[in-house]
Amino acid sequence: MRFQRQTISVEEAVKILLSDLETPREEQVGIYEAAGRILARDITATCDLPPFDRSPLDGFAVRAEDTAGATVDQPVSLEVLETIAAGDVPAKTLTPGTASRIMTGAMLPQGANAVIMFEQTEQPGEWSRQVRVKRSLIAGENLSKQGEEVPIGSIVAKAGERINAGTLAVLATFGYAQVPVVRKPRVGLLSTGPELLEINEPMKPGKIRNSNAIMLAALIAEAGGIPVPLAGLPDELPLVKRQLEECLQDVDLLVTSGGVSVGDFDVMAYLADEPDVTLLFNRVAMRPGTPTTALIYQNKRICALSGNPGACFLGAHLFLLPLVRSLSGERHSQAKRIQAVLGETYDKPCPYPRFLRGRLTEEAGQLIFWPDWNHKAGNLCTMSMSESFGIIPPGGRGKQAGELIEVLPHTMPSWSREG
Amino acid sequence: MRFQRQTISVEEAVKILLSDLETPREEQVGIYEAAGRILARDITATCDLPPFDRSPLDGFAVRAEDTAGATVDQPVSLEVLETIAAGDVPAKTLTPGTASRIMTGAMLPQGANAVIMFEQTEQPGEWSRQVRVKRSLIAGENLSKQGEEVPIGSIVAKAGERINAGTLAVLATFGYAQVPVVRKPRVGLLSTGPELLEINEPMKPGKIRNSNAIMLAALIAEAGGIPVPLAGLPDELPLVKRQLEECLQDVDLLVTSGGVSVGDFDVMAYLADEPDVTLLFNRVAMRPGTPTTALIYQNKRICALSGNPGACFLGAHLFLLPLVRSLSGERHSQAKRIQAVLGETYDKPCPYPRFLRGRLTEEAGQLIFWPDWNHKAGNLCTMSMSESFGIIPPGGRGKQAGELIEVLPHTMPSWSREG
Repeated sequence: MRFQRQTISVEEAVKILLSDLETPREEQVGIYEAAGRILARDITATCDLPPFDRSPLDGFAVRAEDTAGATVDQPVSLEVLETIAAGDVPAKTLTPGTASRIMTGAMLPQGANAVIMFEQTEQPGEWSRQVRVKRSLIAGENLSKQGEEVPIGSIVAKAGERINAGTLAVLATFGYAQVPVVRKPRVGLLSTGPELLEINEPMKPGKIRNSNAIMLAALIAEAGGIPVPLAGLPDELPLVKRQLEECLQDVDLLVTSGGVSVGDFDVMAYLADEPDVTLLFNRVAMRPGTPTTALIYQNKRICALSGNPGACFLGAHLFLLPLVRSLSGERHSQAKRIQAVLGETYDKPCPYPRFLRGRLTEEAGQLIFWPDWNHKAGNLCTMSMSESFGIIPPGGRGKQAGELIEVLPHTMPSWSREG
Repeated sequence: MRFQRQTISVEEAVKILLSDLETPREEQVGIYEAAGRILARDITATCDLPPFDRSPLDGFAVRAEDTAGATVDQPVSLEVLETIAAGDVPAKTLTPGTASRIMTGAMLPQGANAVIMFEQTEQPGEWSRQVRVKRSLIAGENLSKQGEEVPIGSIVAKAGERINAGTLAVLATFGYAQVPVVRKPRVGLLSTGPELLEINEPMKPGKIRNSNAIMLAALIAEAGGIPVPLAGLPDELPLVKRQLEECLQDVDLLVTSGGVSVGDFDVMAYLADEPDVTLLFNRVAMRPGTPTTALIYQNKRICALSGNPGACFLGAHLFLLPLVRSLSGERHSQAKRIQAVLGETYDKPCPYPRFLRGRLTEEAGQLIFWPDWNHKAGNLCTMSMSESFGIIPPGGRGKQAGELIEVLPHTMPSWSREG
């Protein structure tokens, strides 16, 4: 199968890879460890929000009917019963002709049905027993009613959502000190290739340092997985299989880089031919990374990416990360294509869709995709600047500047930063 | 100054807040702890990349001149000297009429000046001493020349960049097992307000649970700071000042939520009047969060945000996070405005620019901003879904659906996820 391979589209490959995954398991974490985790269950409001009628501003709680006809020139005078700070329980009930000084967020006193802001009142002194109201109010004005944002029992966050700062605020509000999240998948990480040196090794003739492992580890962690670095693979297939069997017991998923092509030592390519290994695919209609391979062995998925850094980076975003996100329980696991105008002509012909690293910019609300200055897919020095993949469709023409192309954003566009 | 405040624009406020910051300090971290950190120095290539002339594919290293005239029908036969795997140092020099079998990434043998891929050759058996070349090559074809991507000494990553997966690949390639990064700023975190309960406390009449602290902590951590939760503030100003003095010794920056308005217990507002406190601003032309305040005390900046969850969230993105990113040494610290078409009319008048939480979508390359279904700024249950702030300019008209508005993206748009 090393040379005779069946080519499938990126979309088909993703579909095959993500089908029939195991249901992720749940665990509880403290809310202070929950940022970035995926909710395992829907979260419900444990109380009304607001939990009581309250004032949204600093001013005076009044009976609207007492303010009828009040103007700047003819203010209405009310007797101030008390000052209600946020957190207080009001002691007194408003009766006709009375008001209570009230602070933002404080509970509304009995009898009050409106709040007037300080700036529309006049008080002889700050602690005076009299206040002059300079405007008439209608019942219900400037009130936050109990439950008006969310009534008790409502779903306020959904299973499969990634917990962000906003989610944490919701969880805190409803007292979720412990949060039900999905257990993080353990992703075994393995680089093949006798040319690879460790990062701290000095250079040797013919060798290069392993850059894919740490790159993949960072992407896996960002996607919600736990990267588990594993020792390199031996050369012979039976030893490879024995080692993989051991590795696979400890992880939910294995990703490898290198060894997927037609070279003599491309061990992942040979592995696909073994009878107890299920080949999902080993040739995808894409450049770079055509020989990207996926297998099932010992009931675990193996995502075998190209060793070429650019192809490995692309393959990770197209295949590995959606898989990691799915195993993490994330509802939206797949990268979605949007459209943008191509900023500069790319006319290199290609039999398959070509994924160019680059960036999106914006002009008068229009998205523009700019490919990297250097189109060599193997180049790794521009990889840190990639924020999107622009897709040049197959065929001899490429795409002209100004044409719409499909784009796969993979990182927050830097259009949003300056200074 | 509690009532008489000078209003400045968001842009002016940010500029004042970020001016004359201390130079961030440097520290070394191991590369496996470097993801997300900010580079403290430019990083240079410690070797050429590629470090040697190498083959970009699996095939045969040849002398191009030996292949002159070769076609599918009239192949040229060459003697195979050896097989060069990636990581090998070739043992033999090509002489006229010879070739070496070579794998992707392997060092080119002496004498070779081109590589032909397996698919364009024919070998009687895989380990045969003869190969038939079915195409003529030109010198330099299918070679990666030493240093062609990056020559030794080039700058490959810049001070002030946030280290991402691509940066890690570059650092690994050039052997940076230790990475010079900027020390993370410590950000003290303090919520004022007697109405606040801890997350694990049961509800009490008049009280709400503190949701701003954990929200701010998550945003600070994401921006590269270390959130340092501090005890709540007492009620009296002298005690407040003494406590702040202590807190400020241990942090680079303090953020508070609540107590900035005109209420009787708005301690941050009173603090601004103290002679040893420098007021940077206490009224910003924005909704929500007009009374957002910034001070300098004990030579440290205090970012005093509104206690209203929506205003606190907005103020954090507009003021606190740029400050945290600047103190983290990040080159691009400020949120930048882009343009998008407003998806639905918003005609509520406002004397100041109004920042609506919402999302960006894309249609044929055009960006569209959709405000939250619920425009109440104080609502916190929709905060987790906010990805951008849409800005409705001041004045009585608001903006109609279809008009261009300014947008401040603050999170990766979810247009990029499906499935």
